Amino acid sequence: MDLASLTGRLPPNTVSVHPAEIAKRSRDWWALAMLRERRGDPSPRAEAVVFPRTTDQVAATLAWAEETRTPVVPRGGGSGVVGGAVTASGGIVLDLSEMRRVISIDEESLAVTVEAGVLGGDLEDGLGERGLTLGHYPQSIMISTVGGWIAARSAGQASAGYGAIEDLILGLTAVLPGGLVVSLRPAPRSAAGPDLRQLFAGSEGTLGVVTEAVLSVSRRPSGLRWLAVRPPGFAEGMTLARRVTQGDLRPLVLRVYDEADAALTFGALGDAGGCVLIAAMPEEGPGAEARFAGLGAIAREAGTEPLPEAYGTHWWEHRLDAVDLYRRVMGEERMLGEGVVVDTMEVAALWSRMPELYGLVGAALAEHAEAVGCHLSHPYRSGASLYFTFLVRAEDDRAVEEPYLQSWSAAARACHRAGGTVTHHHGVGLLKTAFMKAELGRGGLALLRTVKRAVDPRGVMNPGKLLPDA
Amino acid sequence: MDLASLTGRLPPNTVSVHPAEIAKRSRDWWALAMLRERRGDPSPRAEAVVFPRTTDQVAATLAWAEETRTPVVPRGGGSGVVGGAVTASGGIVLDLSEMRRVISIDEESLAVTVEAGVLGGDLEDGLGERGLTLGHYPQSIMISTVGGWIAARSAGQASAGYGAIEDLILGLTAVLPGGLVVSLRPAPRSAAGPDLRQLFAGSEGTLGVVTEAVLSVSRRPSGLRWLAVRPPGFAEGMTLARRVTQGDLRPLVLRVYDEADAALTFGALGDAGGCVLIAAMPEEGPGAEARFAGLGAIAREAGTEPLPEAYGTHWWEHRLDAVDLYRRVMGEERMLGEGVVVDTMEVAALWSRMPELYGLVGAALAEHAEAVGCHLSHPYRSGASLYFTFLVRAEDDRAVEEPYLQSWSAAARACHRAGGTVTHHHGVGLLKTAFMKAELGRGGLALLRTVKRAVDPRGVMNPGKLLPDA
Repeated sequence: MDLASLTGRLPPNTVSVHPAEIAKRSRDWWALAMLRERRGDPSPRAEAVVFPRTTDQVAATLAWAEETRTPVVPRGGGSGVVGGAVTASGGIVLDLSEMRRVISIDEESLAVTVEAGVLGGDLEDGLGERGLTLGHYPQSIMISTVGGWIAARSAGQASAGYGAIEDLILGLTAVLPGGLVVSLRPAPRSAAGPDLRQLFAGSEGTLGVVTEAVLSVSRRPSGLRWLAVRPPGFAEGMTLARRVTQGDLRPLVLRVYDEADAALTFGALGDAGGCVLIAAMPEEGPGAEARFAGLGAIAREAGTEPLPEAYGTHWWEHRLDAVDLYRRVMGEERMLGEGVVVDTMEVAALWSRMPELYGLVGAALAEHAEAVGCHLSHPYRSGASLYFTFLVRAEDDRAVEEPYLQSWSAAARACHRAGGTVTHHHGVGLLKTAFMKAELGRGGLALLRTVKRAVDPRGVMNPGKLLPDA
Repeated sequence: MDLASLTGRLPPNTVSVHPAEIAKRSRDWWALAMLRERRGDPSPRAEAVVFPRTTDQVAATLAWAEETRTPVVPRGGGSGVVGGAVTASGGIVLDLSEMRRVISIDEESLAVTVEAGVLGGDLEDGLGERGLTLGHYPQSIMISTVGGWIAARSAGQASAGYGAIEDLILGLTAVLPGGLVVSLRPAPRSAAGPDLRQLFAGSEGTLGVVTEAVLSVSRRPSGLRWLAVRPPGFAEGMTLARRVTQGDLRPLVLRVYDEADAALTFGALGDAGGCVLIAAMPEEGPGAEARFAGLGAIAREAGTEPLPEAYGTHWWEHRLDAVDLYRRVMGEERMLGEGVVVDTMEVAALWSRMPELYGLVGAALAEHAEAVGCHLSHPYRSGASLYFTFLVRAEDDRAVEEPYLQSWSAAARACHRAGGTVTHHHGVGLLKTAFMKAELGRGGLALLRTVKRAVDPRGVMNPGKLLPDA
């Protein structure tokens, strides 16, 4: 790799070849990447990490990469769980973490302009000082970035109230392969052709690099009010979630746990067992009182049993804990011992298919995994997401790889059989490329491939991700 | 044109070469196309109209078109006002009006599956029988189609409550140039790559033909409650609209008229003059009472004067009248006499730029046009649309063309100077291609062109529309 010709185009200290830096940034939080690392397997590494400070430096890097046909893995916080930021083909890592400014806040338009590398927690701090919030709260919020959210098509835990990341994008600056800068002005909405901003939402670094965004923010609610109830069963809980969502009650958060997942999540509260539904609404605002009362009434009619509000506040306060837990299980510590892999699968479907989706995917996972739990979240008028947590166990860290991959294949097939989409918000990365033909159909996959080849004819942008090999 | 080789691939009576059929379907409602027609100018005509009844027949037609390099102008209701369905390069018209079935309604998921050629009014009738509505009410609803809405990136008059067309698309079937069918499963949301459905929303027939869609519907409200007030001025009216929209009051409809537009719209009510704001909310539902009261309170605080509710109901009852009025002015009848063109321009910007947008675009239009009126509609948390109606007058139907085009150029430049987008929901067509470089920037335009060339390498799909010539 002709790194000298790259460093010559960039300011000093922009390119690092430090082995520790490279090692740290050559993978994300995909279970298999972590498993292989703790096994000590040799894994493909980037040869350098580039830390651009401006859009122009990103452009210079992508121009160089195209000329030299060097693979580029764009990187935000590296917290993805599907291998999207694994340096599978070597090349360079383009790490946006130095581009972390909150550039401006337009309080009249409720719009914030940020560099793509800003961490979610830092952005919320900056917005919070003005009484604002983006309302985008993925579990990774402290370690993930705006650019990562856009590239991975993130959805936050309050998506019921605020929408997912694609709903919040007003303007976007991105650099295309070869270095051309695309700057799309912020607009509440436009009919000037297809919305090109949306092409980057879910592109996983395969079509270019997002460097700046203008995002729609909201006034931060003074506080939240929680409802917690126990539905008779998960099917009834799903029906209740649907009725709440279609009934214009607009909770900010709405989650339904099956028995296994409820035990994991609410066990610390001395939960007696059974399914749990929690919902949060802003405590103030026009109609808030009536909406909260309406929520309670629907829940009672559904034959649920009331639970302490603490179920909601407990979940809210501990909602980021799983991040650390996951690291402890999957990292060097091997908290649950050798040969254990924990992963999550988030699928989605229309409401009419949800019982089937729950049944088929759960059964498929259970054939290869133990301790399968599931909750419903991200409800929409038309459907919702089901989030499965599962644990695969084998003799050792080598033997567990096969059942891990089998559990994914079986669950993906089951999901498609139930009319679902195989990913609601974690994305495709390396893990799910094999499912993309069934996901998009032959025509859809061909269309995506056509766009990819046209925008990145040399195939340097995050090769091997999102699309299965042709 | 080798029509025999096309008719051989299709069932009998699918292709028409009847001159009256061709004449009727060789233009849309673009003012300049209507002006030229009433002048009797020779205009480029299609050589045939194809009326497919299935997606496969669309595919067969597009395969033939690519082989024979025949231009294809896809057509819905033909009610577009920017020339998107003008047969500027001859070829064939692909008219979807025979594909007008409502295929199924999933009442649990609130989703309807339709063929693309279904008229808006017919769809609402079908949904209404089940107490449902799409909530998409463009002024053209009785003469425009679902496919046209998607291709033109339509927004309805109740977009404040229901969103615009792209927010309602759950699933999509489209045929690519060459005949490949893309069938994207309905999902409430997915992270399996960029949302390819969105590539067709605003594609104006340049990337393929939408043949079916799955759309998200809502329960139809039992009735509407209207608020009408007179703000001290248009600036104050815009501020009020912003406060209502950002204050979580969620009206279904919200419109603010400046003095000139108010006189046109509410003159029949004996309006005394001045600006007018109208807003509608569902009369029932959780919190509806409190939200309506909140709306009234905000309006009073803003120093507005109450107006009779009849301002709202009058507008609602007459909201489709302009369609016929436009036809009478611009068609053979020449209702306002020779040499008069009436047109509308719908721009949008962030709230912080709205006063500038109103001032600059209004001034630019006033230099070339008379009777310029404006209203604000389609409010979002981040901004809104301004809809200008203007009248250009010259000696005769020939002389008026130049000032008409000048008014558009001047207004587009003014819009971009104010940070706006040159179209909120009418699209680009032939009329606005010259503004697309300023609209998308050099990079954005290059990206759109790259996608177009890759998907339609022979350039047969609606040539000359959306993109300026390279």
